[in-house]
Amino acid sequence: MMPKAVVLLSGGLDSYTAAAMARQQGFELHALTMVYGQRHEREVAAARAVARALGVTRHVEFAVDLRAFGGSSLTSADPVPKDRSQTSDEIPSTYVPARNTVFLSLALAWAETLGASDIVIGVNAIDYSGYPDCRPEFIGAFQQMARLATRAGVGGAALTIHAPLQHMTKAQIIERGRDLGLDYGLTHSCYDPLPDGRPCLRCDSCILRAAGFAEIGVQDPLVQR
Amino acid sequence: MMPKAVVLLSGGLDSYTAAAMARQQGFELHALTMVYGQRHEREVAAARAVARALGVTRHVEFAVDLRAFGGSSLTSADPVPKDRSQTSDEIPSTYVPARNTVFLSLALAWAETLGASDIVIGVNAIDYSGYPDCRPEFIGAFQQMARLATRAGVGGAALTIHAPLQHMTKAQIIERGRDLGLDYGLTHSCYDPLPDGRPCLRCDSCILRAAGFAEIGVQDPLVQR
Repeated sequence: MMPKAVVLLSGGLDSYTAAAMARQQGFELHALTMVYGQRHEREVAAARAVARALGVTRHVEFAVDLRAFGGSSLTSADPVPKDRSQTSDEIPSTYVPARNTVFLSLALAWAETLGASDIVIGVNAIDYSGYPDCRPEFIGAFQQMARLATRAGVGGAALTIHAPLQHMTKAQIIERGRDLGLDYGLTHSCYDPLPDGRPCLRCDSCILRAAGFAEIGVQDPLVQR
Repeated sequence: MMPKAVVLLSGGLDSYTAAAMARQQGFELHALTMVYGQRHEREVAAARAVARALGVTRHVEFAVDLRAFGGSSLTSADPVPKDRSQTSDEIPSTYVPARNTVFLSLALAWAETLGASDIVIGVNAIDYSGYPDCRPEFIGAFQQMARLATRAGVGGAALTIHAPLQHMTKAQIIERGRDLGLDYGLTHSCYDPLPDGRPCLRCDSCILRAAGFAEIGVQDPLVQR
């Protein structure tokens, strides 16, 4: 029997690639998409398309409305910053407080119910927006906490948080995904798409994605020439 | 200005007491109640009454439907165990996978938004049902993770998880609450109330509560003589 893994699937390029890497390692995928008051339903639609392409065993769309707390331009009416310098040390307003902690906690709840010992998250600490909850020290501390939080912590198999993209550049991630035959045309990365749904190409997420494709000299299927 | 604290408020006796202790220490209370597919709306109604009695600054009822994952008799149609031995080492079926991890993560999201450095949770590791996520080592690991998860982790004030009841017996908790003038008639503890809303007096939660009141020779206001 294949071991089960819960994968956090956002509809973006990173989580698609991380999930495909886990599938290649022999995991049976259980995909979890958070519906947390995103500005765009498009993100959830992309997650659905990606889950289908990955052939996941089950896909759960879980509502957790972080707008109740406010505090981020991604979950409020505040403008998304554009053309931001990628060398700034500042945490941008698109940061959603404690987002990955909440998402990993919910993945943990499902993993424990499934009897799964593995959780996969596509965080990246190189070409990223500087969010504290994408750093390797956070992922390590979460794993340690999770091992104490669950039945596993009182005698079961040790839980592992897989963050396979952690130390890869965006270009390396895209190359890996192309090797795995992934269709990045299914994904959605933009924080603030144009009215017709096309990526804005000016938010942090678009800028990082474009730089990754450019570095390996490949056309992004989402961008018209 | 009073420092803000986010308190997890279930409507039970423990979280009411923990919140009142934090208020006495000078915290401004922001109460968070999870609506997670409980069998009984009564629990949420009790949380509302308790929040009012405590004079909290704000009370958020947050929907997080853990029934999507299943795995507990508290969130499914499975029967709640009755008359269970209180010396068993087994984790009972009322355990909700990763519940406190999920609840504390959402409290963390709100705390970060508020700029609060303090979270209060009424977990107890003495007179409790043996859930792994009530143990002090779990609370400590969560705090460590939380400090790395947030803006605070990259330079802000260190986050503290307060679990003031951790090492108190149920009788000590009730005595402390009575000293603080709390009305335990507002609370709700039963996992599986009778059709008319009265506590069953046979589930783990009722048994622990009754033993606490009995130990100090006080009548539980919820129980008719």
